[in-house]
Parts: sequence; C-alpha cells; structure tokens
Amino acid sequence: MTNQLTAALSYAQENKDQILDELIEFVSIPSVSTDPEKKTEMQRAAQWVANQMHSLGFENVKILPTARHPVVYGESLKAGSDKPTVLIYGHYDVQPAEPLELWGTPPFEPTQQGENLYGRGASDMKGQVVASLKAVEAYAHTGDLPINVKFIIEGEEEIGSPSLEKFLTENKDMLSSDFAINPDTGMIGADTPTITYGLRGLAYFELRVTGPEHDLHSGIFGGAVHNPAQALCELIAGMHDGNGRVTLPGFYDSVRSLDDEERAELARLPLDETFYLKQTGAPELFGETGYTAYERVGARPTLEVNGLLSGFTGEGSKTVLPAKAMAKISMRLVPDQNPDEVYKQFMRYLEEYAPPTIRWELEDLNQGDAAITDCTMPGVVALSQAMEATWGKKPVYKREGGSVPVVAQMQKILGIESVLTGFGLPDDNLHAPNEKIHLPTFFNGIDTFIRYLDILSE
Amino acid sequence: MTNQLTAALSYAQENKDQILDELIEFVSIPSVSTDPEKKTEMQRAAQWVANQMHSLGFENVKILPTARHPVVYGESLKAGSDKPTVLIYGHYDVQPAEPLELWGTPPFEPTQQGENLYGRGASDMKGQVVASLKAVEAYAHTGDLPINVKFIIEGEEEIGSPSLEKFLTENKDMLSSDFAINPDTGMIGADTPTITYGLRGLAYFELRVTGPEHDLHSGIFGGAVHNPAQALCELIAGMHDGNGRVTLPGFYDSVRSLDDEERAELARLPLDETFYLKQTGAPELFGETGYTAYERVGARPTLEVNGLLSGFTGEGSKTVLPAKAMAKISMRLVPDQNPDEVYKQFMRYLEEYAPPTIRWELEDLNQGDAAITDCTMPGVVALSQAMEATWGKKPVYKREGGSVPVVAQMQKILGIESVLTGFGLPDDNLHAPNEKIHLPTFFNGIDTFIRYLDILSE
Repeated sequence: MTNQLTAALSYAQENKDQILDELIEFVSIPSVSTDPEKKTEMQRAAQWVANQMHSLGFENVKILPTARHPVVYGESLKAGSDKPTVLIYGHYDVQPAEPLELWGTPPFEPTQQGENLYGRGASDMKGQVVASLKAVEAYAHTGDLPINVKFIIEGEEEIGSPSLEKFLTENKDMLSSDFAINPDTGMIGADTPTITYGLRGLAYFELRVTGPEHDLHSGIFGGAVHNPAQALCELIAGMHDGNGRVTLPGFYDSVRSLDDEERAELARLPLDETFYLKQTGAPELFGETGYTAYERVGARPTLEVNGLLSGFTGEGSKTVLPAKAMAKISMRLVPDQNPDEVYKQFMRYLEEYAPPTIRWELEDLNQGDAAITDCTMPGVVALSQAMEATWGKKPVYKREGGSVPVVAQMQKILGIESVLTGFGLPDDNLHAPNEKIHLPTFFNGIDTFIRYLDILSE
Repeated sequence: MTNQLTAALSYAQENKDQILDELIEFVSIPSVSTDPEKKTEMQRAAQWVANQMHSLGFENVKILPTARHPVVYGESLKAGSDKPTVLIYGHYDVQPAEPLELWGTPPFEPTQQGENLYGRGASDMKGQVVASLKAVEAYAHTGDLPINVKFIIEGEEEIGSPSLEKFLTENKDMLSSDFAINPDTGMIGADTPTITYGLRGLAYFELRVTGPEHDLHSGIFGGAVHNPAQALCELIAGMHDGNGRVTLPGFYDSVRSLDDEERAELARLPLDETFYLKQTGAPELFGETGYTAYERVGARPTLEVNGLLSGFTGEGSKTVLPAKAMAKISMRLVPDQNPDEVYKQFMRYLEEYAPPTIRWELEDLNQGDAAITDCTMPGVVALSQAMEATWGKKPVYKREGGSVPVVAQMQKILGIESVLTGFGLPDDNLHAPNEKIHLPTFFNGIDTFIRYLDILSE
C-alpha cells in the first residue's frame, strides 16, 4: 500500500463525524428539481457542491446555467497528462418528498436511526456525491490526487436530464476524459459490492384512439359503433402473446441474447422470485416464459402500460360512450434494440391490428438507448479490485432494468464509457417515503473510491 | 269532432305566442340538478311547474321534498271515476350546459332561430312538460278536462332519479292511475310521429384491478409482475368475441329474440347505417354480427366501457408501473335480462378469466330493468289515433337503446304500464351543446296531447 493511500484512508477514518455532518447539511437542502418553488433551494444545493470543489483546491469550478437548473463543474488536472482522467458524474437534485404523511421523520431534517440516515436524497444520490467528494478530499488534505478528476454534478436528473445532452455537446472539450464514473446505481446488499454493467433503454409513447366525433349516449348509440376505450384495450391486450412476449413485429430481432455463462453469473445474485414478490407485494410474478424474474427485468425487453384514460372516471356512474381513449405505453429496451426502430415496430403493429372502426395516432414522447459495459475495461477491473480490497470479496456484476440516459449520451457525445456503481441498498426507498442511506456502506463507499483512485493511477 | 276538442285545439292555435313565451321562461331557469350551486334555481323551476298546475285549477298541488330535489305533484279528478286516470310523468331538471364555448347562443337565454328554439332543456324535457301542461290548459280554459290527470314532475332525472323509487313507494295511493304517459323519448323525424315500445335496461359497474402494493418503477420492476393496466385491458378485450358478442357466461340466455315480424317492422324505420354514421361521425360501424345497427342499439344487449383510469395520465412521460387500474363498465339490457343476474354473470366471467397475478373487485353501481310495452293496450292505441289525426299518418313504433328506469319502477311499484312518446327530434342535441326544440313539432305535440285526452275519454 502506498503511503499516499494509507494517509487518505486514515483521513476518511478519522473524519467520519465531520463527513456525516456535511452529508446531513447537503441532504437538508430541499433541492426538488421538479418544483418551481424550489428554485432558490436548487441554487443553494449547486453552491454547496461548488463550495466543496473549491475546498478541494479544484480549478475551473463553475456553476453553469442551463435552461432550468445549473450544472456544477470542477476539475483537478495536477496529476499530469501521463495519468488517467476520470469524469465523475452525479446529481444534486432529489425527488419530491410527497406523500409527507408516510414519512417517519421530516424528509429534509436528516435523522440518524441506528445505522441509517433518513432523508430525501440521502441515497439518491447526495450520499453518493458526498462519498466521491470525500474520497478526493482525503487525498487533497493529505497530499495530491493520484489521477486527474473532473466532476460534473447536474440538477435535472430527477426530471429526465432535459438539458444534459446540450450541455455535453457544448462542453465536449472541457469534459474530455478517459472514462466516466457514475455512482447512481446500487448494491444488491450491504455485504455484496456490486458493479452494474447493463442498463435498459426506453421508448415511451402516447397512443390515442378516437371513434365517434363526440361523446355519445351509451344507450342511444351503444351497439352501433366501436367503443374507443374497448378498442384501445383490445390493442393493448394484443401487445403480449400467451407467453408474455411482446408482439410488435420484429421486436426481438436485434435483442442481444443472454449466453449460458452470463445467465449462470446472474443466477448467483440474490434476486430470486421471493425478492421480487416481497419488493412488489404482487400476488404472483408474471412475465416472459423461459426467463427468471431478474433476467426479465435486467436483460429482456418489456412493454408496460404507464397510464390509461378514457371517458368518465369520477365517483358513481355516467353512461357515456367516450369519443376517445388514451394510453401511455413504454418499452424498456436492451442492447442492440434501437428506440427509433421500436417506434417503427409499434407503428407496424397498429397499422396491422388497429381496426377500421376507429382512428388512432401514436406520439413518440421520450427515448434512450440501452447500455452495456465491457467488464474487461480497465476502469471496471480497477473498481473490482478496489471493492475487493474494501469488502474482502469480489463484487458481483448485475444488469439493471432502469434507464440512465446519461450513459448512452456520454458514449455518443463524449465518446467515453461509464463505470456504473453506487453504495445504495435495495431497501433505501428511492423515490419513496423514508428514503435512507446505510452509513457503514456509505463509509465503505468512500474507502472504495479512495482505493479506486489509487489503483487507477498505477 | 266534439265541441270540447274543437275549442281546445283552437285555444292552442290562438295562444301560440303566449305558450312560446312560457316555454322560454321555463327554459331560462338553469335547473341543473347535478350542480349543488343550482339548488335555488331547482326550487324556482319546481315552483314554476307548481304555479302552472295552480293556474290549470289542479288540486292537491304540492312541492314534495326528497333527499335532494323535490317532486311536483298535482291532480285533476273532476272527470269522475267512470273516466280513465292518467299519470303524466316529466322532469324539470336539465343536464349541465358545459362546455359553454361550444354553444352558439347562451344556453339559459332561449333563442329562436328559424323554426328552432335553442336552450338547455328545451327538448329534454321542458318542452315536453310544457306541451302536456298546455294541452291540459287548452281544456281547462275552454271547458272541462275530459279525463282525470295526475302530474308527477321530478327534479332528479338527469342524475339517475335516485329518490324516485322511494317517492313512488311512499305515495303509491296518491299516484294510482290506469297508466302513465312518459313523453321523455323522441320522434324519428319531424314528419314521423313515433311511439317507443321498448327500452333497454342498465347494469353499471366499476371494476378495479390491483397488482403491486404500490406504484413501481417500470425500469426496476418491469418484467417481474403483471401490470394491472395491462391485465384490465386483457379482461376487457375478452368481454367481446370475434362476432362482437358479449362473452359473460349466460349473458344471452334470457334475451327475448326478435321475431321476423318485428324485424321487418323495425327495418322500415329510417334508421339505417347512414343514419348512425352521420349521427356518430365514426369511421365505420361496429357491433354484433347478424343484426342491423338499429337492432343492435334497440333490441340487443350491449357492453360498453364508460371510463378507464390508471397510472400517469398527465402531459409527457412518467415511467410508472401502476399499482391499480379502474374501468367503468355497463351493460344495456333487453327483456328478459335481469341486472342482478348480469352482476352474477360478470362475477363468473372475472372468477374464470382474471389471472392469479392480479387482484380485482367489482362494484355494482346502478341498475334498471329493461321495459317493453304491449302496443295493443288502449293507451297506446289512443295515442296512435291522436298522432294520425295530427300528422295525417300513422306513427311508427320503435325501440330505444337508452334506459328510463322510471318505466320499470312504475310497473313494479304502481303496477301500471307507461306509454312512451315525445316530440323531440334526433338532431335536438340532447345532453350536448346547442340543444334545441323544433317549434312546429312542439306545437304538433300539444295538438296530439289535446286529441289524446279526448280519445281516452271515449
């Protein structure tokens, strides 16, 4: 172990109380990006991050405006051009705390209970941002950073990062680096260090079906025309076959198969049926036959109805035959599916199966590519070694069903891969009441980052 | 022609301007029964009706309170017990006028344009109520009423007559009569006097499907569980077969068939495919194979989705896997279907086809029996003669797809049949913007009522 590493690890160990105080300070800022009334709080949170970077001796620290919430940037390039440069991504915004009545402690008054610190954003992802800042601080306050580091901490992740693509494009040179570290995914358990190597993409649509030109009286016209709500249900019902497979023409054509080796590896993760039953509370699981629940979520594409609206939805009864019906429908994609291709497949499905008794239109609302990381790349190997050194065991490799569009954007715009990790746990209640972070895991995360920077310098 | 009839017809002819003024006065009262802020207007409308009855010399005129809006009652029994007693039903409440921006004239400032008077409630059914009051007035102001008449004019028809069943039960003796006249249905065209002899019943439900215990992230859990919105769509899609027939077990078992004679009679009505295409604006018609559109609407049971709600329905995208989904589903019934039986059939369908991957519950919201009138009963024959005398042609007999629960209630509670008629036209825009009444038809309606009372006295 180098002296530099030893000193940095000792610094983190000795300053736990102060680090926890700073985490509490950061989590207590209600930086809810979707809430227009929290604009000042968003600026406070951005300033808090910038102040941290200044205190690390970072250069070029800037709070850069975007259409909505600013991006905080800072860099330390003193390690020199023969050392690698990593771009550490994070976000300082958080989900809304509502429904407030379900919280056991005030969401923006971080409260420690046992080994956990409760508060909105503690795990997603202020804790992760603080862990990476404090790993850098451990070097900055005891010597020099062993590699070059650039931080990009945005404020719009929880609203879909609408400004990020433009920001990356306009600041391509500033952000140039060897690879990115994105600690916005999580661990499988407190004793199971985890590297995420696959993320699903997204293709999100609104399907609108119309029939009669105006709402009709269901008595006077029921039986004469095709009810648009019924027609929409019929179309949606046809989007899966009896094996739970999506029926859009060509949907599976470019799906990269799971090989036996990867399936065996994934099967070792503690994400069995019991896990999913417990997490969801569903009476039974459901999905594509031939795959485990975890394979279906992580490595297979899916189609979900995210919303339905038609006709009368209030209390009681109204005998309307509605003129229109709407569904929000989205697909989670895997490599090598392409959202634009999926749009065409959806159109082909509708052209083929929508009956002439109704009219329809499909709006393409949102999309993001799936991503998969090559686990043999040096950034992943180094992280694996750092994790093993911290936990005394090798990490597991998992796929995650969600989408992190920034990963594909960085690949496309900056030409760099992302290493996906994070020190949140499955029971951290992300996006839900009583969000918390497990403090021993948080401190292990700081140690891991410290070791990671050291290994990368070799 | 009796002198009495001649005098009454002349009275109606000579007082057209005053009758029109009174119709305008009545329609200008915004008696919207569903709107809690219109309580005073509801009382004004009830008082207006009561004042009319007083001016006819009616006795026992009362504004009788119910749980929500009062019923107006009045009677004239001076014709004596050897003459028939008819109960004339009507309602003084109207539908809401919204959306106001689609009206060409203010809905509660009745405006004459050509042969039509525009205003909310003009046709449904203040015009019909005024026509029956003025026919009685024509006798009252020129001599004596030839038969005994009781009026029951309620204020809750547009919200489903929730108080009527109790009212009929509690006032059974007061309401006793030979049969009822219900002018709340309409004519096929201005030159086609029409008697309605069949009405469909109603069974209205809310079906709620739940799956996960709370909303899930569609990335993290999409693929693991059965999406309740998808499951609901699958259940709804299965409720019709490829021939447009309802698949609830036993649904058609007690449906009274149309015989060839009735089908031939119905086929003579000008209610062909073109009529339904024009009235609905649908791209094509749709329904149970083997029946014309008019047969499907009038004489066959149907199942409609009246509303759908699940998940995220706002602007843009939210990747929620919703915990629940809801549909309002109702069936229009024909003789001899029974709403309670249909509830059991619906339960059997769900028990058989709802998958174990979701939970569901079915709420029974509203129901009414179908009704069919014997066209040889004296009340119908007399109306037919009155119409022929007014229009110079025999009326057509039609079935109507809507439900008028009061018909079945009067049959069940009072033991009397209803004669269903009315002088509204298909383009009167009932329940829609720009409701109107065709004034020449309205005045023909008064003449018809005058002749009808005369014929009934023979």
